[in-house]
Amino acid sequence: AILAAIEAALLPADRPLSGRHVLVTSGPTHEPIDPVRYIANRSSGAQGAAIATALLRLGARVTFVTGPASAPPPEGAEIVAVETAAEMLAAVKAALPADAAIFAAAVADWRVTQASGRKIKKQAGALPGLSLAENPDILARVAGMAVGRPDLVVGFAAETDDVVAHATAKRARKGCDWIVANDVSPGTGIMGGTENAVTLITEEGAEDWPRMAKRAVAERLAKRVAEALAAGGRTASGGRV
Amino acid sequence: AILAAIEAALLPADRPLSGRHVLVTSGPTHEPIDPVRYIANRSSGAQGAAIATALLRLGARVTFVTGPASAPPPEGAEIVAVETAAEMLAAVKAALPADAAIFAAAVADWRVTQASGRKIKKQAGALPGLSLAENPDILARVAGMAVGRPDLVVGFAAETDDVVAHATAKRARKGCDWIVANDVSPGTGIMGGTENAVTLITEEGAEDWPRMAKRAVAERLAKRVAEALAAGGRTASGGRV
Repeated sequence: AILAAIEAALLPADRPLSGRHVLVTSGPTHEPIDPVRYIANRSSGAQGAAIATALLRLGARVTFVTGPASAPPPEGAEIVAVETAAEMLAAVKAALPADAAIFAAAVADWRVTQASGRKIKKQAGALPGLSLAENPDILARVAGMAVGRPDLVVGFAAETDDVVAHATAKRARKGCDWIVANDVSPGTGIMGGTENAVTLITEEGAEDWPRMAKRAVAERLAKRVAEALAAGGRTASGGRV
Repeated sequence: AILAAIEAALLPADRPLSGRHVLVTSGPTHEPIDPVRYIANRSSGAQGAAIATALLRLGARVTFVTGPASAPPPEGAEIVAVETAAEMLAAVKAALPADAAIFAAAVADWRVTQASGRKIKKQAGALPGLSLAENPDILARVAGMAVGRPDLVVGFAAETDDVVAHATAKRARKGCDWIVANDVSPGTGIMGGTENAVTLITEEGAEDWPRMAKRAVAERLAKRVAEALAAGGRTASGGRV
């Protein structure tokens, strides 16, 4: 606390998010099939952790809700570890209110309807039909909050084709302010890699960012979040109102 | 190489597996649904890595075929990294011949029949039916080899109920020499933990080992492997012929 106070005193101009609470979700979710099997999304959690770190550097208080990720969690954030989408939704609700919420987690769209408490035995000729149910849409729920909605709600869209079209449609469908979209096709090396090439979708359209380190993407996004909150939140798309 | 030679000269009595080649599989397999989703088994790879390390200490040459594991791979082994069960089978075939083969990997029993090259889009009301196909049974294939079968083939059985009965049946069904069985029910803390409580199933029956560190399980198993190979392989169940 003393160190934080000294840092805040030394670098007031660089801490535009001082006094702000930002919620960041990160990593994959794991949806159990039985005690030993699960369905998962690919996500190292590296981009989410980098965003949280960048927000902390700008002075924000950060709650970091993370699924089982391989990247180390950000130092200085309040870490909430979850496994499933349902657990992530509960943790997000518990973490609100927040000035901004950045949903970088790769949440599984589906869960197995009735996960077995026992290991499913393989039987000759009898394949288990996995019955799937849609998971809660955490981004849409928070973006659609009538009361207590964060001033800025940011979603992510990992796509493999028609990236901008899919992400623009997703922004409208979810009711969020921005979508950070990227192409995660196997050939790009982005998934599991250290670099990212994103397109920021705002109400003003699509803004391509050059390919850069995930840390640099995080710093640029954190700066835009600070500008948007300073300008009044959801009506701002970063820098101008 | 020089260090290894010195070690071998210094500790000849402790290196009963010198000149032996042992194949170890470890970790989970990931079976893709589409570029961002997959089905997986829970496995940290900790027990498999510990077994490889123990075998290396007894002088064996070790080929370590590993799925995407969180535990660090054993130093000194030849590491072959794979993702799916089909890739693991191919890597195992390429690694043979071996004096002993220890299948500690948690191989997914099923794969998605036709993994999508594009990210499957979520559509309102339309849940994707995942069509599953049985994966190749790597343990049974190697245990059943008419020519070039390793002298000792060891499988693993992670169970949540009726551990000994399921593991004994598995030994007979697969045609392997030993099964290392354990109870991975959530309450045991074994999955993802540092300890293990196993039962060794041989032709002579079931032998309960006390709960101990995974490293200790590995050392005890490696010693038994050395004894069995010294006694002539598959007809030996460890120590006596």
